[in-house]
Parts: sequence; structure tokens; C-alpha cells
Amino acid sequence: MSLSFSIPTISLGLRPDLQRKINQKTKPIGSLGRLEGVALQIGLIQQTLSPKLTNPHIVVFAGDHGIAESGVSQYPQEVTYQMVKNFLNGGAAINTFCKQNNIELIVADTGVKGDFDKELTHFLNLKISHGTKNFLEKPAMSEKECLKCIEQGSNIVKDIAKKGTNVIGFGEMGIGNTSSASFILHHLTGMKLAECVGSGTGLNEKGLEKKLAILKQANRKYPKNMKPLEVLATFGGFEIAHMVGAMLEGAEQKMVVLVDGFIATSAAMIAHALYPQAKEYMIFSHQSDEYGHAHMLEHLRVMPLLLLGMRLGEGTGCAVAYPLLKSAVNFINNMASFEDASVSETVKG
Amino acid sequence: MSLSFSIPTISLGLRPDLQRKINQKTKPIGSLGRLEGVALQIGLIQQTLSPKLTNPHIVVFAGDHGIAESGVSQYPQEVTYQMVKNFLNGGAAINTFCKQNNIELIVADTGVKGDFDKELTHFLNLKISHGTKNFLEKPAMSEKECLKCIEQGSNIVKDIAKKGTNVIGFGEMGIGNTSSASFILHHLTGMKLAECVGSGTGLNEKGLEKKLAILKQANRKYPKNMKPLEVLATFGGFEIAHMVGAMLEGAEQKMVVLVDGFIATSAAMIAHALYPQAKEYMIFSHQSDEYGHAHMLEHLRVMPLLLLGMRLGEGTGCAVAYPLLKSAVNFINNMASFEDASVSETVKG
Repeated sequence: MSLSFSIPTISLGLRPDLQRKINQKTKPIGSLGRLEGVALQIGLIQQTLSPKLTNPHIVVFAGDHGIAESGVSQYPQEVTYQMVKNFLNGGAAINTFCKQNNIELIVADTGVKGDFDKELTHFLNLKISHGTKNFLEKPAMSEKECLKCIEQGSNIVKDIAKKGTNVIGFGEMGIGNTSSASFILHHLTGMKLAECVGSGTGLNEKGLEKKLAILKQANRKYPKNMKPLEVLATFGGFEIAHMVGAMLEGAEQKMVVLVDGFIATSAAMIAHALYPQAKEYMIFSHQSDEYGHAHMLEHLRVMPLLLLGMRLGEGTGCAVAYPLLKSAVNFINNMASFEDASVSETVKG
Repeated sequence: MSLSFSIPTISLGLRPDLQRKINQKTKPIGSLGRLEGVALQIGLIQQTLSPKLTNPHIVVFAGDHGIAESGVSQYPQEVTYQMVKNFLNGGAAINTFCKQNNIELIVADTGVKGDFDKELTHFLNLKISHGTKNFLEKPAMSEKECLKCIEQGSNIVKDIAKKGTNVIGFGEMGIGNTSSASFILHHLTGMKLAECVGSGTGLNEKGLEKKLAILKQANRKYPKNMKPLEVLATFGGFEIAHMVGAMLEGAEQKMVVLVDGFIATSAAMIAHALYPQAKEYMIFSHQSDEYGHAHMLEHLRVMPLLLLGMRLGEGTGCAVAYPLLKSAVNFINNMASFEDASVSETVKG
């Protein structure tokens, strides 16, 4: 398997000028903390001293997982279908937060068991099949399916880029998909599987033990040292593979790519393993309460913006963190400088 | 000195119904993390299952400090005046963030050295005098002045309440005021002064040593075991004393009171020492990077919403955190329930 994204490493030539502009704002140096780093990153991505965020989008990819049949989740598999309906009817958390923050929401069916009205606006039918295979028995998807997912994810972002969008986040829905994300963490870092598995939507201790036992059993069927795309095809979901393509395309399009929680970060890990420079375009919106997410962020050596104990998925972390990106861009564009405002920057002893 | 606020302890009778409403939303239980706690708190403050945030305000109190003459800050004292001008011209960080989040900003001169055009809109002249006394020599303000500050702070919030505002934050500007906040932390908790003093707007190691030496010298002039209002009058600033009155009135008016960083939290500590139940109305917007703020939050046993390494004051933490309050209120009002959306909440094993 091979891919052909063309993702430029971001030139740091503008960094001193951006830093100077930030430092000349009427505030003590560094006093806007992480917002300053975000302003700097967005300025570098856009190669400008006056970065802008235009037409923000979140795409939620939904797909079902064969492994859900084996009882790894608190919720029955049909909840994937029901929740996509809920997204389409505007009743989910991601609808609420996107509406609040003027983010356009698109829902993509990448492989839900059950079909939707294909004429709906803000809905994309990208169905690969009615759910992945159960990786207790065989790989979740074929190599061909995996590449198709990545291509489709990439194409969506190309289309959205044509609308003038330069900031995009990705969410997911798929009962069972914390199991996929745990395998990605395990295989890409070598961390013990038990350190990668958490309670997902809310398993109790007994449920968590059962989940871990099932995942250990599945893991014994497959070789170690698989390549990132093999890990993705073997354990992934269609929605995760779409996110990989979408994130890589976001970077290729020089967008700001907002990364959500545990599942979305597993896609970011695959994207990063394939194209390390893709990380330069990513902002990690929050640290999920799902056990394992902190390990992912540590592995990627990134700091999340928010620590709110959220663990909902759907891209909710991206949507809730988005106003912070706006604050970063707004302060660098709109605050007065010491000179503009005739404020002394004399530093005493 | 005595005060006569009437702040009701919040009835928890509605808590089970609020929690049930939150749990019935189409998401795993608890999966919105801190946003759920915020929704619960606002629902309890407003005693409703459908809380609303109306006409949000931030008031920035500005005042000068006698101690600034002794060289405790990185910036010269005239920066207080210059920055108030900057607020009035719309060029500061707080202007930018209030505008972004549709928060009305009011600037109040409580004791700046220098005078402003009193006809400006969004400006209040509450000047007590042209700066506090230097507490190296005598108490920063008299008992009478301190009570006047509290009364004026309270009156502003009464006026704002008449405009239908039910959520309010407070910011400050005053070169030297981290020194006041450090003394409040020291005297109210008994923590060593060195543990309470930080680098403020950005002192280097040498500057910090000098600041600590000056504050230790000042501290020897005054008794231990002062009452909260004596601590406030001795070491406080006019802007801090106004914030104490404003926060207490916010609680009396059953508003959501957003607390900013190190200085604002020192006012919250005084308010809490006088009326412990006032804390039930407070949401702590962020943890400042100023050394000592974490100790304050720990002493109050509260968790801040944001950890962004900010240390700017002006109410910027309140303004940047405000969208999270909106998210909390929006999800409890606008998300579908499992029943509404026909989503299964069957819990397996």
C-alpha cells in the first residue's frame, strides 16, 4: 500500500516577525499563554502576519465495527445508526456546539449498518459496506477498502477547500471504535495493550476486563511490527481510515486541522506515522478522559488546549475549542501595539 | 467594619432533576465532563432546568498602587493610566475577547493616577483617590475608603442587574496589584509569603527577589491575624476592594459570577471569607500562570475551567472561558434526549 500526499514542511522563516508582532501587543510578554502559541502556529501555517479563520467545518465520519458484536461496548451496535439520525436531525452535542460557534457540520456515512436518505443536505454517502469485519476473525477491512477510505476522506476535504475553508475538524461515531483506537496506540507505540484500553462510553470494571480479554485474544491472531496502514486496515474502522485521508488532505491544503479525542487522535497517529510533517498543521483541541488519550498526546509530543474531562467524540472537543482559535487570531489581528496605544514598555531593573 | 449583603445558600432541591435531564441527553453519562458540572451549577443558581445566560458583562476595575513606587513591578506606574486609555480606545486584549464573545465591557476608574474624559460610554468614574498609599509606610486605604469601594462595586452590579444581566465577570488593571493579591493569599491562608509572591507581569529572578524583600519588609509593619477586611484595607487596591463588593452583589443578585486570575481570585478569597456561600455562584474561569494562583484555587477547593498559561488580568480569562458556559447552557437546553431521538440507552453487561 502506498499513498501520494504532498505535504510541505512549514517554513519557519516568518517566525521571528510573528513573534515580534505578538510581543509588541499591549500585554506582558507571553501573558496570553497557549493562545500565543496558537496564533504563531496559525500564522506559520498560513504564512502571514495576519492569519484568518474562514468558513470552519467539522466532518463527522460514522461507521460500524464488526468487533461490536463481541460485546466490547456499553451500547448496542444500532446506536451508531440512531446517532447518525440524531446528527441529521440536529439533536446531538456536536450539532449544538457547531451551531453555537458557527461551524458548518457535515455527516458522512462511511459504513453504518443501515441506510439514510441520501438527499439530505450536509450528508454524504461514502459507505464502503455495512460495517467492518470482526477482527477477532479476520482483518476489519481489505487493503483496497482501506485505500478507498483514505481517498474518499481526502476528496471530501478537497471539496470543502473549494468553499474557502481554511480550518477543519473531524469527529466520529461508531460503536466499538475505542477498540480500534486502542490497537493503533498499541501497535504504533509498543505500549502494553492493557495501557491502551479504556472504558469507552462507560464500561464498568467487569465490562472493561471483558473488553481487554477480547482485544488480547484478537491481537494474538496478527503479527507484531505491522506497518501503519496494515494496523489501520486490520483493526481500524472505516470512519478512522477516512479521517486519516481527511487529515492528510487538510495538511496538504494548508488548513488548520483540529484534532478531537481518542479516536480522532488515533487517526492523527497514523497520519503522523505516514507523514510526520502533517503534525505541524494539527491543533489538539482537548485531552479526552478516555484512558489512553493522554498516552497518545505524549507520544505525539503535543499539548491539548482543553482539559475538561470530556469523552464524547463526534468532534465535540474541536467544536468547543474553536473559540480559542478565534481568540488567538483575533488578538494578533486586533490588539493595539505598545506604539499604537502609547503604552510604555520600559522595563525596570 | 461590617457589611450587610444578603446572599442565599443555593437550594439543592433541583439537583436530582437537573442531573436526570443531563443524563438523558444523547451521550454517554458524564461524557461532557466539566461542561456537565457547569450546566448543573448554572441550573442551580437560576433554580431552573432550562438555564439561560443573558446580557453578559465584564467590568474592569482600574486603580493605582502606592507600592508601585517602590519598584515591585516590571512596568512603570503610568502604565495603569495608559492601559485604561487603551481599554477605552478598544485596543486591549479584553476588548478583543469581549467583542468576539458578545460580552459588554465596562471600565471603571477606582483610583488611577490621572483622569479620563468622564463622558465616555462604558466608562465609570468611581475614583477614590489618585492611587492607594504605599503600604511600606501606612495602610493602602482607610477603613472608610475600603467600605466605599465595596459599596460602589456593589452598586455597579445592582445597576447592571437592572439591564437583565445574569452572568458577570470582573477584571482589573493596576501596576503593583499582584503584591496586594499575594498579601491576601498570605494572610488568609497562613502560607509563607515567599510561596505567595510571583513574577507578576514578568520580573526576572533578581526583580522577584527585590519584590519579595520589599513585601517582607512591609509585612513586618502589620499584625498577624488581621480580619479579611483589615487585610483588604491594609494591602489591597481600590480595584480589588471594588471587586469584592461587585462579586458579593453578583451573588446576592443570583448571577453567575465569573472569576478571572490571581488578582480577581484574591478578591474572591475576601468575598468567600466574609460570605462562604458566595462561592456557590462563582465559576473559576482559568488557572493563571502567576505563581500563587494555583494555591488560591486549592485553598478555595475549586477547579478552574481553563489551563492555558495566561497571566494577563483585565478579565481576559473570564472572556475567553465564556463560550464554555454557553456550551454548557446550550447542551442542556438544545440536545435531544434518548427518548426524543429514539436512541437506545440499553446498557449491556
